[in-house]
Amino acid sequence: MPSPPPAWVQALKPADPQGSQLLSQERAQSKVDVDRLAELLHTKESLDRQDRLLALLQADPVFDKSQNHTLGRTERIQKSLGKAKRLQQLAEKNNWSMEELHAANELLGEPTPYGLHASMFLVTLREQGTPEQHKLFLERAQNYQILGCYAQTELGHGSNVRGLETTATWNQDDKTFTIHSPTLTASKWWIGSLGRTANHAVVMAQLYIGGKNYGPHPFVVQVRDLQTHQPLENIYVGDIGPKFGYNTMDNGFLLFNHVKIPHVNMLARFSSIDKQTGKYLRPASPTLVYGTLTWVRSNIVLQAGGVLARGVTIATRYCAVRKQFQDRDAQGNVGENQVLNYKMVQVRLLPLLASMYALHFTGRGMMRLYQENQKRMKAGAQSGQDSRGAGPEELRAGADLLADLHATSCGLKALASTAAGEGLEVCRRACGGHGYSSYSGIGPWYSDYLPTLTWEGDNYMLTQQVARYLLKSARVVLAGKGANNDTCQILQTYLDRRDKGASFDVLEVDSDIVAAFAWRTAHLTFEALKHRDVEKRSWNSLLVDFWRLSTAHSQYLVVKNFHEAVTSPHLTSALDPETTGLMHKLFRLYALHTLEREAAEFFSSSAVTTRQISLAQTNAVMKLLDDIRPHAVRLVDAWKIPDWQLDSSLGRYDGEVYPDLFRRASQNPVNDLVFDPYPWNEAVLKNTPPKSKL
Amino acid sequence: MPSPPPAWVQALKPADPQGSQLLSQERAQSKVDVDRLAELLHTKESLDRQDRLLALLQADPVFDKSQNHTLGRTERIQKSLGKAKRLQQLAEKNNWSMEELHAANELLGEPTPYGLHASMFLVTLREQGTPEQHKLFLERAQNYQILGCYAQTELGHGSNVRGLETTATWNQDDKTFTIHSPTLTASKWWIGSLGRTANHAVVMAQLYIGGKNYGPHPFVVQVRDLQTHQPLENIYVGDIGPKFGYNTMDNGFLLFNHVKIPHVNMLARFSSIDKQTGKYLRPASPTLVYGTLTWVRSNIVLQAGGVLARGVTIATRYCAVRKQFQDRDAQGNVGENQVLNYKMVQVRLLPLLASMYALHFTGRGMMRLYQENQKRMKAGAQSGQDSRGAGPEELRAGADLLADLHATSCGLKALASTAAGEGLEVCRRACGGHGYSSYSGIGPWYSDYLPTLTWEGDNYMLTQQVARYLLKSARVVLAGKGANNDTCQILQTYLDRRDKGASFDVLEVDSDIVAAFAWRTAHLTFEALKHRDVEKRSWNSLLVDFWRLSTAHSQYLVVKNFHEAVTSPHLTSALDPETTGLMHKLFRLYALHTLEREAAEFFSSSAVTTRQISLAQTNAVMKLLDDIRPHAVRLVDAWKIPDWQLDSSLGRYDGEVYPDLFRRASQNPVNDLVFDPYPWNEAVLKNTPPKSKL
Repeated sequence: MPSPPPAWVQALKPADPQGSQLLSQERAQSKVDVDRLAELLHTKESLDRQDRLLALLQADPVFDKSQNHTLGRTERIQKSLGKAKRLQQLAEKNNWSMEELHAANELLGEPTPYGLHASMFLVTLREQGTPEQHKLFLERAQNYQILGCYAQTELGHGSNVRGLETTATWNQDDKTFTIHSPTLTASKWWIGSLGRTANHAVVMAQLYIGGKNYGPHPFVVQVRDLQTHQPLENIYVGDIGPKFGYNTMDNGFLLFNHVKIPHVNMLARFSSIDKQTGKYLRPASPTLVYGTLTWVRSNIVLQAGGVLARGVTIATRYCAVRKQFQDRDAQGNVGENQVLNYKMVQVRLLPLLASMYALHFTGRGMMRLYQENQKRMKAGAQSGQDSRGAGPEELRAGADLLADLHATSCGLKALASTAAGEGLEVCRRACGGHGYSSYSGIGPWYSDYLPTLTWEGDNYMLTQQVARYLLKSARVVLAGKGANNDTCQILQTYLDRRDKGASFDVLEVDSDIVAAFAWRTAHLTFEALKHRDVEKRSWNSLLVDFWRLSTAHSQYLVVKNFHEAVTSPHLTSALDPETTGLMHKLFRLYALHTLEREAAEFFSSSAVTTRQISLAQTNAVMKLLDDIRPHAVRLVDAWKIPDWQLDSSLGRYDGEVYPDLFRRASQNPVNDLVFDPYPWNEAVLKNTPPKSKL
Repeated sequence: MPSPPPAWVQALKPADPQGSQLLSQERAQSKVDVDRLAELLHTKESLDRQDRLLALLQADPVFDKSQNHTLGRTERIQKSLGKAKRLQQLAEKNNWSMEELHAANELLGEPTPYGLHASMFLVTLREQGTPEQHKLFLERAQNYQILGCYAQTELGHGSNVRGLETTATWNQDDKTFTIHSPTLTASKWWIGSLGRTANHAVVMAQLYIGGKNYGPHPFVVQVRDLQTHQPLENIYVGDIGPKFGYNTMDNGFLLFNHVKIPHVNMLARFSSIDKQTGKYLRPASPTLVYGTLTWVRSNIVLQAGGVLARGVTIATRYCAVRKQFQDRDAQGNVGENQVLNYKMVQVRLLPLLASMYALHFTGRGMMRLYQENQKRMKAGAQSGQDSRGAGPEELRAGADLLADLHATSCGLKALASTAAGEGLEVCRRACGGHGYSSYSGIGPWYSDYLPTLTWEGDNYMLTQQVARYLLKSARVVLAGKGANNDTCQILQTYLDRRDKGASFDVLEVDSDIVAAFAWRTAHLTFEALKHRDVEKRSWNSLLVDFWRLSTAHSQYLVVKNFHEAVTSPHLTSALDPETTGLMHKLFRLYALHTLEREAAEFFSSSAVTTRQISLAQTNAVMKLLDDIRPHAVRLVDAWKIPDWQLDSSLGRYDGEVYPDLFRRASQNPVNDLVFDPYPWNEAVLKNTPPKSKL
């Protein structure tokens, strides 16, 4: 590490006012009860857990973050495995629950090489394995005696799972499967934890029995020796190289050259092969898998709020500390203005502040709906029927709702992760030049988050599923057979009122805002239906319309969920009236700002008038920015993201931005190098041994 | 490097059809004459130069790019200095011109530690130094005997140059200046080439004479010893640490503790101090500095086209090679569809293809205008007057045009660099999962480009300058004294026709498209003027309107320049009629796609009807996508970006995407590591010496 700065440097302070003073002023000018709001968002229990875990992690030098942005990839991934091991040791020692381990990982803030073992490998074994397979694989995996991953995506196929090329051929003679990669594009690719860590993989492969293809199925395959950790024979496995982010994870590739595995290695809870006859046994209850995906996506929506909150917390605090230019209309020398006071900054940041609340409440709402429904269906199933038979009413209503939830979760996943990813970049730019420094804490976080826009369904691909579902619902409603779910209801309402027209008062009545968003979705749905069913236009020619439709529908869902949350007794009883009022304002800001950005669709569907849009833009949104501005710092404080997690000079809770930037800069290891700057000297460093010659 | 894959892996090929076949088909289905188009864009001379330089660079192992994304920052920056030195050696040996050195740097594709020495340091010395100072500093700098940088931005001040805190106090007694950093926030920050390389800096500091502040002025200050390369006494200098990109550049910080420099070190071409009397001598001809900034910004606009072209080249070729899913309406098993055939991909990529042409032609147009005007003004000045006196007509007309060009260059710089930066990310996502790999070539390029959105004027800040200029022009036009420039003309046209209303046929008549964009700008200008001058609204409350106004105006300029280019004899005589027709289609796609995205402003200004927008969206744009699609690969080929420069598996000219991704992945150095995967073993690697223990 470079030597410390000389005394005259250490004596320097930033120009007044200090960042700490400015943030104190910010906090003094608002009465938002940060602790109560935090408990509403995260629960007391999880905030306490966070404090406990933070103390443990911060105390351990293995979790040091200071060199994260400086090290090369080979060093970083080794450090990250070290962190993962220590977390696992702590988990065992302290008997952590899954939630605790997950929360500790969140605080650490980087994907580790254990990541996919601890999530998809364990989950798949648990959900798709039989009791026998649990004993054989899951138990050892839970004890980290075997390390695994989930190998689905291939070099040539990601989104189109049916196009996977890896094969698993059943050999009736010796009761085995042969796993094989017939081409280079069949290579598994992007598989997290596989590159250097895993010794097992759940491999998705096309099942062939007697020459017939039964589609992709999951197989457990050992890929490395448990002692030497070298690849087994006829297996070629490795790390796929550096990425835009996620460089602490060993995403891997994997090729098989006719590798035999026993019958028991096909995960057989839902479908299997009769060992004696070689007959394929049909999958039972595929809706359960369906359910898992819905859960995963709802989680992405909830997390998107938290992801965005990191960026907004950093940018809001820094823009309150940073002063630049005097207000142009100010009289005399009043000093420079806080950047957060500029409307051009507010209009970028405060709608994102509203978004992070909106996404959080929407994710929570979806998960609650999902859980309630799972409970209801379980009750239905236990009353004697399975989900494919003509079960009780409850079961069928549950299936209807699950289908609705599945479709809406696709669109919301796309909307929420795009909003979070793009929002982080908006936050980074709102920090001006310093946003570009790794010490801003935004860039590295953004880079690591971006894959979320592609995985669990590419955000553009997913919109087709939403559109398909909306078209199907519209056909049902037109046929007079609408199901009892929200989608059918908004379509029906639109049909009933279409001739009379809409007259929503979006400027005054909150519920009318929700209705206007519903109206626009319904309008676009019936437009798309006309194109497809009446005009018989090709699916491909409608993809852009479908994407717009899915976006509109998902925005409606966020607005609806946010409105429900801010009017719920759960919220109003937990918060004081002033904070409740602010939550309403955040709702209105999110909704009206979205309405303004999508103005064209709102008037072409006659949901609102051009006059209303213009008023929303020039009056309502500007007024809301004024109203929310004084509370901005407290509203991000309420997310309670610890400094150690933020890892940001700009976003520090105490506002001491400049001393921290300076300290980190002066300590960075590049300052240990002494260059030889002259082009006629080949050596790059002054006084280096000959091996440093280029 | 990891050992090569086993024979059975080496024998594998991607599934058919091969990428090379697909790109051959693409190239066969279009008759665009790639070479003629390339010469129109870049000139034969510069294409030949590129070939010549490429051969030199590729042959030299010092320029190897294979480890760029894997090394840590300390290693990368050393390698980059090595590359910079070698380039300089080649430049001397081959007697390169500045253009040749610049072109070689472009091929290398990374900022090097010599970057700011070779640009801003030399330029500032040349433009702001006297002949005596040229002898003293510029000559040595050109010979790399001294290495320098341009130190303006500080930790606490970037955009607001007048707020800089570093002081330069004139000492009449010993005829020196004292350079001093009174606070921590006065530290110079972000200074390229300063962190480890420079031994001199041009420091912008507040000039104080006899207690009076004369504002920021440039001073040459030596910061490191020429032999030991250690910082001089009372100077604290270093590298500011890792960044989102640009990590091969040593952006630095710099603090002064009362450092004395001689009188001759204040760059004195435009303003100076009389050594004997200590009297401040007023700056001459500040419009010249004004001119340099305009030139720099025009260059950013031109480059933005090329920056985007890299992303679009990669994404277009890869989307032609990548196949995924069968078309939903296809009958029977017709195989998977090229991703580029999907409308949802086309609607993202092809408007960017149009943009890169649009920005290129706009940049060229601005630079031509600037050069013509400089020539005219020089002629005027030589006829006997200086630019502040009552010179000849030509001089005043030139000043009018320069003011117009300066203001428009601000807006265009913001629009173009934002379009290029955000466009690259759209390209990256259009590549699906593999876009996230560093081997896509997009991510690293995007990360290095992003600062352009902030430097040379933050893209949001700049829009105020444009708005201020438009408001001023509108006041002049209203007073009946409009100058003879384009801005005043479009404002006057709007005033003349406002009562009759607009009736532009944007779907059929190309010149009407340009007129509609002009109309929208004029409408927004007079709206903003009303808010400011009549309603007396605060400047701050109008910032969002100003930003919209600047964006609208800049889009108008791009549309206008693009239209002029595609109808110019220069273009039509150089290209065959079919390619000329395609250029028109690209113009229409750029314009109508922009019109559609900004629909709300176009109808609220009554430039077009809602019916026209709807037709533009559903018919015109979709038809243009169909028409341009078959030529997409040739239209990117025409940019002639060599594979070595792209450094992308996905964007290879030959389409051999998958073998290249696989080759790079298997050779990446992480594959040399053998992990110990078990959490109860502290060591991260198998069989490592004890020093590798964590």
